[in-house]
Amino acid sequence: MSEYIDHDPNGTTVGQVEKQFFTFAGTDDPFVLESGASLGSVTLAYETCGTLNPDRSNAILVLHALSGDSHVAGYYRADDAKPGWWDIMVGPGKGIDTDKYFVICANILGSCMGSTGPASVNPATGKPYGTDFPLITIGDMVRAQKILVDHLGIDKLLAVVGGSIGGMQMLEWCVRYPDSVASAVALATTCRHSALAIAFNEVARQSIMADPNWRGGHYYDGPRPGMGLAIARMIGHITYLSDESMRLKFGRRLQNKSALSFEFGADFQVESYLQYQGNKFIERFDANSFLYITKAADYFDLAREHGNGSLVKAFSKCRARFLVVSYTSDWLYPTYQSKEMVTAMKKTNLDVSFCEIEAQWGHDAFLLPNDKLDHLMAGFLRSVAHASAAV
Amino acid sequence: MSEYIDHDPNGTTVGQVEKQFFTFAGTDDPFVLESGASLGSVTLAYETCGTLNPDRSNAILVLHALSGDSHVAGYYRADDAKPGWWDIMVGPGKGIDTDKYFVICANILGSCMGSTGPASVNPATGKPYGTDFPLITIGDMVRAQKILVDHLGIDKLLAVVGGSIGGMQMLEWCVRYPDSVASAVALATTCRHSALAIAFNEVARQSIMADPNWRGGHYYDGPRPGMGLAIARMIGHITYLSDESMRLKFGRRLQNKSALSFEFGADFQVESYLQYQGNKFIERFDANSFLYITKAADYFDLAREHGNGSLVKAFSKCRARFLVVSYTSDWLYPTYQSKEMVTAMKKTNLDVSFCEIEAQWGHDAFLLPNDKLDHLMAGFLRSVAHASAAV
Repeated sequence: MSEYIDHDPNGTTVGQVEKQFFTFAGTDDPFVLESGASLGSVTLAYETCGTLNPDRSNAILVLHALSGDSHVAGYYRADDAKPGWWDIMVGPGKGIDTDKYFVICANILGSCMGSTGPASVNPATGKPYGTDFPLITIGDMVRAQKILVDHLGIDKLLAVVGGSIGGMQMLEWCVRYPDSVASAVALATTCRHSALAIAFNEVARQSIMADPNWRGGHYYDGPRPGMGLAIARMIGHITYLSDESMRLKFGRRLQNKSALSFEFGADFQVESYLQYQGNKFIERFDANSFLYITKAADYFDLAREHGNGSLVKAFSKCRARFLVVSYTSDWLYPTYQSKEMVTAMKKTNLDVSFCEIEAQWGHDAFLLPNDKLDHLMAGFLRSVAHASAAV
Repeated sequence: MSEYIDHDPNGTTVGQVEKQFFTFAGTDDPFVLESGASLGSVTLAYETCGTLNPDRSNAILVLHALSGDSHVAGYYRADDAKPGWWDIMVGPGKGIDTDKYFVICANILGSCMGSTGPASVNPATGKPYGTDFPLITIGDMVRAQKILVDHLGIDKLLAVVGGSIGGMQMLEWCVRYPDSVASAVALATTCRHSALAIAFNEVARQSIMADPNWRGGHYYDGPRPGMGLAIARMIGHITYLSDESMRLKFGRRLQNKSALSFEFGADFQVESYLQYQGNKFIERFDANSFLYITKAADYFDLAREHGNGSLVKAFSKCRARFLVVSYTSDWLYPTYQSKEMVTAMKKTNLDVSFCEIEAQWGHDAFLLPNDKLDHLMAGFLRSVAHASAAV
């Protein structure tokens, strides 16, 4: 997701939140992954906002995308410069209303924001895993989340909500745990990556692995592969925007308005923007986590994994009500991919609402302020809650 | 341009061709560039096919794109594995019929295929220029080509034909030398790069400059920045294709059909294809030339340079007849950019024909076999030649 989103500093927020940690599995009881490998200990960082009602029926699980974390809304400290990454959506009176719902958000397995990932210490060696960390899948992420949700004593989630790679997790939740999900919201997501999406991810991974500081993934005792990760992030950022949004945001405006530099610096504002985003990203994100999470996203294929190649068959296991939202200018996960999803859902007689939102901002649109999405989200959740008498 | 184009080995070709060299400028008479810097000696590699008629009125200048060269058609030797890069278009009875026309193609200034560029020896030091080579512009490339065309004794070109960055040169020719161009064909090109196109180029350049072997551009006495250049090429290749063409060509097909590898190798065919293209490219192309040519393309802005910001004003200097062709799935230089060009041309009462060709293959389409383009090209040239009584 992008960094440049302006949050409304005067908006109502959930206030102070705290990052919590839940650890499970052990040497005798490892967490076995889809690859066949296993992890001796798994920690998930998570945060909650709102209040769980007495019958534990108002919980909403929010699933973050590639570079997100558990900090979905609110502030850790009063002097934080920014609230959580989806503060525009999650809070009192917002699209996901924390006056009504209990919101859970966990950092995904494989990430570097508190949950177990390649930068974590391998209990077997006492050193960071690096690329000894086994490859994980969206299914593995979701199975870990299910253990957390069980630990929190929640049998059935009122809703599972996710955009982009978070949307893949949402789909996996609905198919894998049909009895545990009353409803689900898919934003700007897909049942499987196109060749184009895989291609962008692969070039980004190559750029990290080409950085001499990457050293086969075992770099934690030395300099980080920052240049490779910065380039990977720049590639990502291009795919999150759109031709139109870049034209509106940057056009051909120069950094130095007086003239072209005739040097290999950043002449155009769009160049400077990408360099800034790349450099900012390496301060907070781990290059190996980028490799693991993008690979998990590329591997994800709901039809192959759960329907023997048929999306209809995969969805036939679901019982959730769905809201599916795509954005007109999203060329990473274009509307036609959401429509394929919706068509398959309808063929299995699932209750699904679909909306394509007119937006210039490309894939990033799902994270930007949008009244239409707020209303859709609030209305959908209200209807689901009413049906299940949760609120 | 892509490498995977299949040429028809049984097609008629121009037969044997020879790479020639033309050198101009000198210490006392340098070639002064738009940046203000100058080159003490400039060599252009060029090839010709067909026969120049007695009144020198049947010459067509073909302008190549980023990674092209002077070898537009035919073979150097009988055992060459492949003919020139546009052999499907240039030859006896083809779209650009060498039985009728005399075709010239020169490697662009700044390239590494025989013409002066950053890998050339700097006469002042006796060593390769590296990044001491001055930044060049599309205008500089075209001014060098004009000196070559003058040298060949041709006052007026029957046509100037170019696709992609070759199309930019074509536009520059028409505006800069209106008396020397009877007609012009623009394929899959633009009057200026969008922010999106600049963004892709900048990330590709960053990837080269991040390679430790790049060493500030002075690497000719050591290992080449191959990994950086390979990644730059992979990024380019993604932009030459389209979502649809990648789906048709690769989809999610695996390299090893039996299973996912659960390793960071190339699982998907699209990954393997990109890696192959990247690795093949570094055998033949110079990383610094990639930097210089992409920067020249990003700088190109016909309206700014020749119309004080107005495209109409820029085209008001032209007298050529135009054929403008775009491709439906080209998202690097989309049809709307060709339409802007055509609209401005029409406003200055230029004679322009425009055709958007339905094609799945993205930007690459202009280099792929296409009967429609062959017919358009042949018909347009025939009409122009008839009007000027050249053939």
